[in-house]
Amino acid sequence: MDELNLKNVPKATAKRLPLYLRYLNMLQDAGVTRIKSKEFSEVTQVPSATIRRDFSHLGELGRSGYGYDVAYLIEVFNQILDTNEEKRIALVGFGNLGKALANNNFRRNSNLNIIAIFDNNPDLVGKEIDGHLVYPMSDFQEKVTEMGITVAISTVPSQFSQTAVDQIVAAGITAILNFAPDRVDVPNDVHVQYIDLTTELQTLIFFDQNYQKKVAAKV
Amino acid sequence: MDELNLKNVPKATAKRLPLYLRYLNMLQDAGVTRIKSKEFSEVTQVPSATIRRDFSHLGELGRSGYGYDVAYLIEVFNQILDTNEEKRIALVGFGNLGKALANNNFRRNSNLNIIAIFDNNPDLVGKEIDGHLVYPMSDFQEKVTEMGITVAISTVPSQFSQTAVDQIVAAGITAILNFAPDRVDVPNDVHVQYIDLTTELQTLIFFDQNYQKKVAAKV
Repeated sequence: MDELNLKNVPKATAKRLPLYLRYLNMLQDAGVTRIKSKEFSEVTQVPSATIRRDFSHLGELGRSGYGYDVAYLIEVFNQILDTNEEKRIALVGFGNLGKALANNNFRRNSNLNIIAIFDNNPDLVGKEIDGHLVYPMSDFQEKVTEMGITVAISTVPSQFSQTAVDQIVAAGITAILNFAPDRVDVPNDVHVQYIDLTTELQTLIFFDQNYQKKVAAKV
Repeated sequence: MDELNLKNVPKATAKRLPLYLRYLNMLQDAGVTRIKSKEFSEVTQVPSATIRRDFSHLGELGRSGYGYDVAYLIEVFNQILDTNEEKRIALVGFGNLGKALANNNFRRNSNLNIIAIFDNNPDLVGKEIDGHLVYPMSDFQEKVTEMGITVAISTVPSQFSQTAVDQIVAAGITAILNFAPDRVDVPNDVHVQYIDLTTELQTLIFFDQNYQKKVAAKV
């Protein structure tokens, strides 16, 4: 695959790739070998024009009239997303949300693995909880090196989030999924993805209310 | 405020409004009364050109050179997002993730309230857990009507997600936040927002790896 293509993939397209890949795997499991963009649109709920545009950024994947070869798409998308390589993940913060993440552990994707859990709570540190050993944050750097960890997930509350992220960055990690929505300061080469559930919920309510008002106005 | 403007707000702009509002509230708490788009860009980490474009969709909010009045922006954004009105929320599914959501209960936003919790697990139903009473799904429609619930959050696993969503829709709810990433079938007037943590993590890793490769290639 042409390496050059990758750098020109728009952000919006890249964000849809994991979704596409998940559905392609499901289709393959169901015995589907070829799919047209219109059919793929129906399962993914992504407009077929968007699918064709996204696919066009990734090189010659097939012809829209004839359809796409499911196995080939899976191979290409796996290569792009590098999902065949194990990602070793540290989870920082072991409250209810941390427990939910550790117990689920991205089980639908066998290459994303939370392999070490950290917290500063003396009630948790050094104990095995639900089968997960909890390390103190003071061991973070050492464990990251020892275990080959390259990704961190922080569920640390907002008021302690910057401190936790500083420790994560100091250990050389450049990819951080952060469940505290307040923006943290990080060097330019570090990527932080925020999960902001309040914002997601407010946006949903905004669109729903505006839609219902519009419908009501038409009646 | 001109009602017409609202319908023309692009989706990308609308998605940033809750983020803007949160930072404006923080700025006001810190005693800031006026802010320029460049300064606001620094706190929110949204490019200042994007901020100016977003604000321009919402009418005459100020002049970019002079700055924006923080109190006025808060008033306008509150009106747009209708955040002064309480949103009564049902939580469906009370596993680890459900517990994390119920205990946090969007505490930074006093108008988003999870007021009833539902599950089908006989070990949970009818019991008070961490101070939360768990209702059976068979009571869903009745409780929704009785309690004036208009929003639902589902943490029900993928294999049961469609069934849970069908029950939510049957009770007349049109706004659903769904933590199971597989797309569910709903009528056109129902809005489902998916929280797909695996996709968020894969996208983060994709961007981080591509960036680190690009930097390595330059050295």
